[in-house]
Amino acid sequence: MDIDRRMLPYRGITPVAYLAGLVALILMLVWLLHYREGLEYDSDNPYRVFNVHPFLMLFGLVYIAGHAIMAYKMVPGSHNVQKFVHMLQNLVAICLGIIGICAVFKFHDMLKIEDMYSLHSWIGISTICLFCFQWVFGFVTFMFPRASTHTRVRARPWHAALGRALLYMAICAALTGLMEKATLLKQNNQASQRELHLVNFTGLSILLFGIFVDLSVA
Amino acid sequence: MDIDRRMLPYRGITPVAYLAGLVALILMLVWLLHYREGLEYDSDNPYRVFNVHPFLMLFGLVYIAGHAIMAYKMVPGSHNVQKFVHMLQNLVAICLGIIGICAVFKFHDMLKIEDMYSLHSWIGISTICLFCFQWVFGFVTFMFPRASTHTRVRARPWHAALGRALLYMAICAALTGLMEKATLLKQNNQASQRELHLVNFTGLSILLFGIFVDLSVA
Repeated sequence: MDIDRRMLPYRGITPVAYLAGLVALILMLVWLLHYREGLEYDSDNPYRVFNVHPFLMLFGLVYIAGHAIMAYKMVPGSHNVQKFVHMLQNLVAICLGIIGICAVFKFHDMLKIEDMYSLHSWIGISTICLFCFQWVFGFVTFMFPRASTHTRVRARPWHAALGRALLYMAICAALTGLMEKATLLKQNNQASQRELHLVNFTGLSILLFGIFVDLSVA
Repeated sequence: MDIDRRMLPYRGITPVAYLAGLVALILMLVWLLHYREGLEYDSDNPYRVFNVHPFLMLFGLVYIAGHAIMAYKMVPGSHNVQKFVHMLQNLVAICLGIIGICAVFKFHDMLKIEDMYSLHSWIGISTICLFCFQWVFGFVTFMFPRASTHTRVRARPWHAALGRALLYMAICAALTGLMEKATLLKQNNQASQRELHLVNFTGLSILLFGIFVDLSVA
């Protein structure tokens, strides 16, 4: 078993995925805390409320969901322990994602901005809806009440494929979101070139995280 | 062999990938020809020059490059024929991509806009550079002068993995590009809601194309 794993071509990739995810999170926090207004859900400053959105979506639906994909490789213990961690991580990701979406709707309400007009919002809302469907489908099929062995074997590649597609969608949502915000900031002369470069590096780290997570389970 | 292929879970996916790609191309053309100024590389109207960019990038680095990934499944004939078609499609994709990038630089020159500041441009330029590297690497390793069998066997999963990552990067570049353009149009009140919805549907089709191409070769 050990020899087999050592022969896999992408074996050294998982630590790189961890690193890229951590870099993305840190850059996002530097951006929101140093260059922007900070983050607070119950603030009177609408921009502090808004900033909860990019952080929680990245932390939940990209970072934790990405780690959930890698759980079967990285969590020590039996298959059942790995499955439980995978399920729990995805549940946490969904909860953070829902709070993150509430934050942006609250921001829109505070500034009387319309909802759901952009490509970013269309990709994002499709992602969270499919994510919830995938979680329920996975829970019912693989945990409780659990389908027959035959059904589980047939469902597994579809569950894995949809999971990978969802990470890919979440990353597209994140990148289009960063692009929208950066374009607005630049257009209104509200950001220095240094800040815009930081946003670009955050986006690149998110993209690399997605590529390396995908590679690590390929 | 036939029975094995029929048992693959994602067998019916390839036609869906073809359809999504075609829909994305048609929507893009409707947008550029009906809602925007049309496309012409040698025009005096900078916006007609600009419009060459989104069309060629989508047609080259997403649509044709996506079909090149599926060539080993869909092109009839021997493995060598498939390999030749795959190589040729990727070469055409690179040429279209380079002309597409020249178009946007020409547009920037005409309107004195700075180059390479956005996340879209950073992702895009990384994608085309890596794409050229991947093509040269693939040509030298698998076609001429061709590496030893041992090296080819070791290189194949890396070549496939980088190819999938590049399609994923090209799609992220396309979506961030659409997002940037749509944000600017909306901000300057230059587009109707109907046009912005068309852009969103174009983006969703591109995203689905990527997911289905990836699934069809998973």
